[in-house]
Amino acid sequence: MDMYGIIEKKRDGGKLSREEINFFIEGFTTGRIPDYQASALLMAIFLRRMDKEETYFLTDAMMKSGDIVDLSAVHGCKVDKHSTGGVGDKTTLICAPLASACGVPVAKMSGRGLGFTGGTIDKLEAIPGFSTQLSPEAFIAQINRIGIAITGQTAQVAKADKLLYALRDVTATVENLSLITSSVMSKKLASGSDAIVLDVKCGDGAFMHDLAGAEEMADWMVEMGKKAGKKTLALITSMEQPLGFAVGNALEVEEAIRTLRGEGPADITELSLAIAGAMIYAAGLTDSLEEGQKRADHALQAGEGLARLRALIEAQGGDSRVVDAPDRLPQARYREEIRAARDGWIQAVHAKRIGAASVHTGAGRQEKTDVPDPAAGILLAKKIGDPAAAGDLLATVMGGSRERLQLAAEEVRRAYVIGDAPVQPPALMLKKVE
Amino acid sequence: MDMYGIIEKKRDGGKLSREEINFFIEGFTTGRIPDYQASALLMAIFLRRMDKEETYFLTDAMMKSGDIVDLSAVHGCKVDKHSTGGVGDKTTLICAPLASACGVPVAKMSGRGLGFTGGTIDKLEAIPGFSTQLSPEAFIAQINRIGIAITGQTAQVAKADKLLYALRDVTATVENLSLITSSVMSKKLASGSDAIVLDVKCGDGAFMHDLAGAEEMADWMVEMGKKAGKKTLALITSMEQPLGFAVGNALEVEEAIRTLRGEGPADITELSLAIAGAMIYAAGLTDSLEEGQKRADHALQAGEGLARLRALIEAQGGDSRVVDAPDRLPQARYREEIRAARDGWIQAVHAKRIGAASVHTGAGRQEKTDVPDPAAGILLAKKIGDPAAAGDLLATVMGGSRERLQLAAEEVRRAYVIGDAPVQPPALMLKKVE
Repeated sequence: MDMYGIIEKKRDGGKLSREEINFFIEGFTTGRIPDYQASALLMAIFLRRMDKEETYFLTDAMMKSGDIVDLSAVHGCKVDKHSTGGVGDKTTLICAPLASACGVPVAKMSGRGLGFTGGTIDKLEAIPGFSTQLSPEAFIAQINRIGIAITGQTAQVAKADKLLYALRDVTATVENLSLITSSVMSKKLASGSDAIVLDVKCGDGAFMHDLAGAEEMADWMVEMGKKAGKKTLALITSMEQPLGFAVGNALEVEEAIRTLRGEGPADITELSLAIAGAMIYAAGLTDSLEEGQKRADHALQAGEGLARLRALIEAQGGDSRVVDAPDRLPQARYREEIRAARDGWIQAVHAKRIGAASVHTGAGRQEKTDVPDPAAGILLAKKIGDPAAAGDLLATVMGGSRERLQLAAEEVRRAYVIGDAPVQPPALMLKKVE
Repeated sequence: MDMYGIIEKKRDGGKLSREEINFFIEGFTTGRIPDYQASALLMAIFLRRMDKEETYFLTDAMMKSGDIVDLSAVHGCKVDKHSTGGVGDKTTLICAPLASACGVPVAKMSGRGLGFTGGTIDKLEAIPGFSTQLSPEAFIAQINRIGIAITGQTAQVAKADKLLYALRDVTATVENLSLITSSVMSKKLASGSDAIVLDVKCGDGAFMHDLAGAEEMADWMVEMGKKAGKKTLALITSMEQPLGFAVGNALEVEEAIRTLRGEGPADITELSLAIAGAMIYAAGLTDSLEEGQKRADHALQAGEGLARLRALIEAQGGDSRVVDAPDRLPQARYREEIRAARDGWIQAVHAKRIGAASVHTGAGRQEKTDVPDPAAGILLAKKIGDPAAAGDLLATVMGGSRERLQLAAEEVRRAYVIGDAPVQPPALMLKKVE
């Protein structure tokens, strides 16, 4: 077996065997197979595609390329949650405490953001003092003690994914069903939970623009999880416009806290309850998603989710006073308002443009080495379906540099489409794949 | 403009602009664009293809990526000749002296062999003392003095091609019409001749297996030459079985000498006269190919081609006594005979297998750093259409290592197909593209 033959086979549309995929992932991870051969294979995979079986072999090989987290010391059915990436998606900060409050041990490993989507770890680090680097022992001990811990993904989990992703990112081979599926699922399978709840985004601001594509992705991911023996289910949810009103690290933490107080935006509340409900159901604590969701709702109403978030922040060294006084979170130095140029109804708030604008404010990363500004971001004032009069506030951009805010404001202006006809806001929950 | 966008565009089937192709070739040649991005683009080009215009932009950019040889100091219309690669193809050693003897200034830059095809430079170096490294000044002076010089291609001509080829060779992106066309033609266009004669091979032992494919390749190459303002024509010739009987460096030199004496195999004689005739016609010395061929035939009969080869060897420091006494060429230490296992007619002598066998004898290169054994090779005794009786000699393999000869003999055995029905030898000259 040699790498040349493997590239040639995929180039000609052939199906790679488990042995060939293992040979590639092992060789690439250990540095025996050079980048230029890996990128030729990635492009061949991108254009010739892989079937479900090849994708499972790839997922499995990548999962085994690094450490596999052992959570057997955590009592109960551990549930992990993953979103394929959205703008303003602070759901983890809400559903994880809610599920935990309902008895699901939450052992969450999260990533950082890149490009137009933010990462949970970046958001948590906006809380003064919050540590996102727990040792494996501290991670497990904390879950057993308070039922929840959230830590940054180490480079040792699904090592091949980290290396491959860096290469895909510079060779235009990111947006491929098999490569995305194996990247997401290899990390989830290596991170030691017993069940996985996936939030597959669909729409203008997501990789999958239509429901058929999102269903296919959800179906593949769920199948990878099941093949590996994990209870796995996916919710397909809309990503036509940003979730909630806040985009940016501290701003999103604040909106998450408000949501756990029962004062959050309708969409974020609905999505968080649905995912928390799915986690409770996946953990085997209820017989249906709907029942799980009811439990999550009770926990929300009773303030148990908020209490669990407070406990989480305290356990990981953060300043938990932010829960009652969100003004303790970092505040941006400059603000600029974007106002409607005409009367009408908001037809669109393009999620990708808002994501790009948030990177301009300094809230995100353009390059992997960028350090996000915790205080920067965007606060939307209008969403799809809202009426607007000329001069009405559409959004406020905030950050530490006036020049960058100019760029951000321009992008936000382009994100808003105002038209003459009233429109319905898009449905949020699209489908469930089990 | 950035490399990511260029990869993405070709990946999605877009057409690259001249500027984008120049950006890639310049960036890659200077090392600004890394190998892994280049190989992703090469695979995208391989699978999505380039059209004729993109291929011309690529040819032009590669041509300009290195030195462009200035042959203006050579009097007359200089003609270059190129073969797309065959097994046992020693035509250059015959047609170049013939064309030169007929008044065509031949300024030939040749390459070394790799894989199953031999290179003219390797063959000439089998002649004791022959130098294939002429300075530009010596090269020009020799052509003006004796009408012919053959030198090795420097790394400085079409620099991008050398770098790209090395990458294509390890990423399974060699066999693509645009990439082959631009590789061949960028070198030809940079090497300073006024006219170009191409021998495009077709058949089992060539990149193009069928006539339609070979015609397309010939058409593209001829168009690249014409677009660059050079008189260009192509002959499409059969590569179903090796040319002549000799495969290997000294063996082929010997067969070339015999051919120039008028005692060569029919196929090699026919092909060499056709190409020499095309060179004479391309130089504007006759009004038709046929007339050119007649002149070449006269030169052959009169021994003028042989005299010119002798002058060439002398001028480049070689032992010209080999022309009269070929046993002065290096002789192999070991020989092994391959005999027919049954009665019948030779149906096939697979060129690629014979090429692979010659690499086993030591005559060729598996890796670029291998040094070919000048004495090693294969002498065929039977070709397609010949009758054979069980026990008849099919071929003799020769070389310096008994173990390697074992491998070679096995491969030669597999190359021969003997069947019950008599067959016609395949036609050699298939088509002319002008």
